[in-house]
Amino acid sequence: MTEYPLVQPEPLRQFCIEALKKAGIPDEDACIVAGIQLEADLRGVHSHGSIAIIGYAGRIKAGGNKANPNIHIISEAPAYALVDGDDGLGQIVAYRAMEICIRKAKATGLACVGVNNSSHFGAAASYAMMALKENLIGVATTNAAAIIPPTGGKTGIFGTNPISVAVPTGHSFPVVLDMATSTVATQKIVQAYREGQKIPAGWGMDKEGNTTTDPLTALTSGIQPPLGGYKGYGLAMIVEILAGVMTSARFGRATEGKNWALGNHLNVGHFFIALNPAMFLPLDEFKSRVEQLITDVKSVQLIEGTQKVYVPGEIEWEKRNKYLKEGIPYPPAALAQLEKFGQEIGVGVKLR
Amino acid sequence: MTEYPLVQPEPLRQFCIEALKKAGIPDEDACIVAGIQLEADLRGVHSHGSIAIIGYAGRIKAGGNKANPNIHIISEAPAYALVDGDDGLGQIVAYRAMEICIRKAKATGLACVGVNNSSHFGAAASYAMMALKENLIGVATTNAAAIIPPTGGKTGIFGTNPISVAVPTGHSFPVVLDMATSTVATQKIVQAYREGQKIPAGWGMDKEGNTTTDPLTALTSGIQPPLGGYKGYGLAMIVEILAGVMTSARFGRATEGKNWALGNHLNVGHFFIALNPAMFLPLDEFKSRVEQLITDVKSVQLIEGTQKVYVPGEIEWEKRNKYLKEGIPYPPAALAQLEKFGQEIGVGVKLR
Repeated sequence: MTEYPLVQPEPLRQFCIEALKKAGIPDEDACIVAGIQLEADLRGVHSHGSIAIIGYAGRIKAGGNKANPNIHIISEAPAYALVDGDDGLGQIVAYRAMEICIRKAKATGLACVGVNNSSHFGAAASYAMMALKENLIGVATTNAAAIIPPTGGKTGIFGTNPISVAVPTGHSFPVVLDMATSTVATQKIVQAYREGQKIPAGWGMDKEGNTTTDPLTALTSGIQPPLGGYKGYGLAMIVEILAGVMTSARFGRATEGKNWALGNHLNVGHFFIALNPAMFLPLDEFKSRVEQLITDVKSVQLIEGTQKVYVPGEIEWEKRNKYLKEGIPYPPAALAQLEKFGQEIGVGVKLR
Repeated sequence: MTEYPLVQPEPLRQFCIEALKKAGIPDEDACIVAGIQLEADLRGVHSHGSIAIIGYAGRIKAGGNKANPNIHIISEAPAYALVDGDDGLGQIVAYRAMEICIRKAKATGLACVGVNNSSHFGAAASYAMMALKENLIGVATTNAAAIIPPTGGKTGIFGTNPISVAVPTGHSFPVVLDMATSTVATQKIVQAYREGQKIPAGWGMDKEGNTTTDPLTALTSGIQPPLGGYKGYGLAMIVEILAGVMTSARFGRATEGKNWALGNHLNVGHFFIALNPAMFLPLDEFKSRVEQLITDVKSVQLIEGTQKVYVPGEIEWEKRNKYLKEGIPYPPAALAQLEKFGQEIGVGVKLR
């Protein structure tokens, strides 16, 4: 395995803020996007981390995204809102939408916010986890470029359509599920390609729907297998309906790759839910029950050869604590690309 | 494959109603439970169909369930309610809870209902689909006997914890996802065992966590693999938190099989959501967009050897239409068991 150079969190944040500001993003928004991308790197999800700002800056330059969008509520009631992202960066749009969702859920117990005219929002967990500081359960989904075929087909119809759920806990790390409904997130295949590695069987399909271990074949076939077969296909379709169909965003066949050129308006849709466990029982009791469930999970007998059972979000939490102290081991090819980008646009911050 | 005898829907419904009434269930409730179980048979989900009433009658006789429960709301607000099932049959409890959820969602756009002190409720789709007649999207989940270990473990912590989502459509069949977060529903393994068939690799685990094709080994090991590995484990844990932890139902380790004796109070938990797509766009427009998505799915190029791509719920819909006309092809071993049960308790209706 290649040696990964260490990048310190604060310079990386400053690098991203400066780069985003150079792309025309207002200060406050640049800080939000940089914070979200940094958190993804800290959680070890480099595929959705700071490297993505190169693409975002490119989309703003090409006119596909606006640096100063007019994000606004189209319709609302106590338990819901529909938000027009006005072609803002997905991170800004999703952050604002989840703020609204959290505010509403604090008043009603349960609320949802749909979003249209957005774009790629990074890691879904970023928005589900926003609910945690208010002791709410957060749910975040989005549609994306058509890449998952229905079972039996070889034409992509659904995006990787991730589902993230974050649950507040007591003394433990928060429980955070963040999963693509494809076998893996597209960006993990991109990363394998960047690093010159093969992908495990089952991650990718060739054009004919056969499995492949070559990341380039998988990326250029335009399709990816759904998680666990027809069930993953079903989950991807439900996410497409909630985040794409119901929000008046682009959906299905219309999201196919050729429509994702840098200058295109994407009209990606998101769907967020926030719910307050305290509507059913005292918060302390909820938290101690979640802790009991974590204890149950940790108490299982291990399959031979297994060292430890992890709770969803625990690996990312451990990485975050380690990387905050020691620095982020950054995939070298991506780091070189990011540094080159910084030089081109004149970012003064050094990453190593 | 064994020849399946045909059972006509109406005699089967009457058989179930009579059997449930003999168990002490009031008329109206017996009709509800019989209707729910008949629908599962009509959809080809025999594992969750009329055969299950034998067990339900046994649980009432043994005192584990009440024939006349006092199902009531513990707490509520416009967007949510928490319901105490008072040890009623899961079907009755879930039906009443989903009625409340639908009523609330019609007023607020989005509502959820948590349930405790319930028991096995049959097929999750039964309740998600209740939302369809009101043109709402329905979501139904439940926890269940601990059988799914976390990834790397060989002790069951989570139930098969199904997720069902039903979506209203225009001229097409409704989109209905109904999936266990295990690789398959437990009852499908029970059915394979009843019919003397092997199970596909990946459906079951032996006690050490290795895959097995013998249904008895799979059923007696007490564990089942989660859907697609760690992602299915994550989904099972989220369902456990929503349906079990948050509702004050029994959860995690405490739901292990030894606590499921006929005479035991189970305190199973459910969680339901209903949402109105018309909160975001006119209903007709929503429906025509869902139809467009179905058209997209149906338009894909097929993988060699595939005849047709199905939308979630379509296979069950086709079966229902066929079985309503021709009768239900009923698994013979289960049918003999049901007839024997009918004779024992003096049900007059003949099934063939």
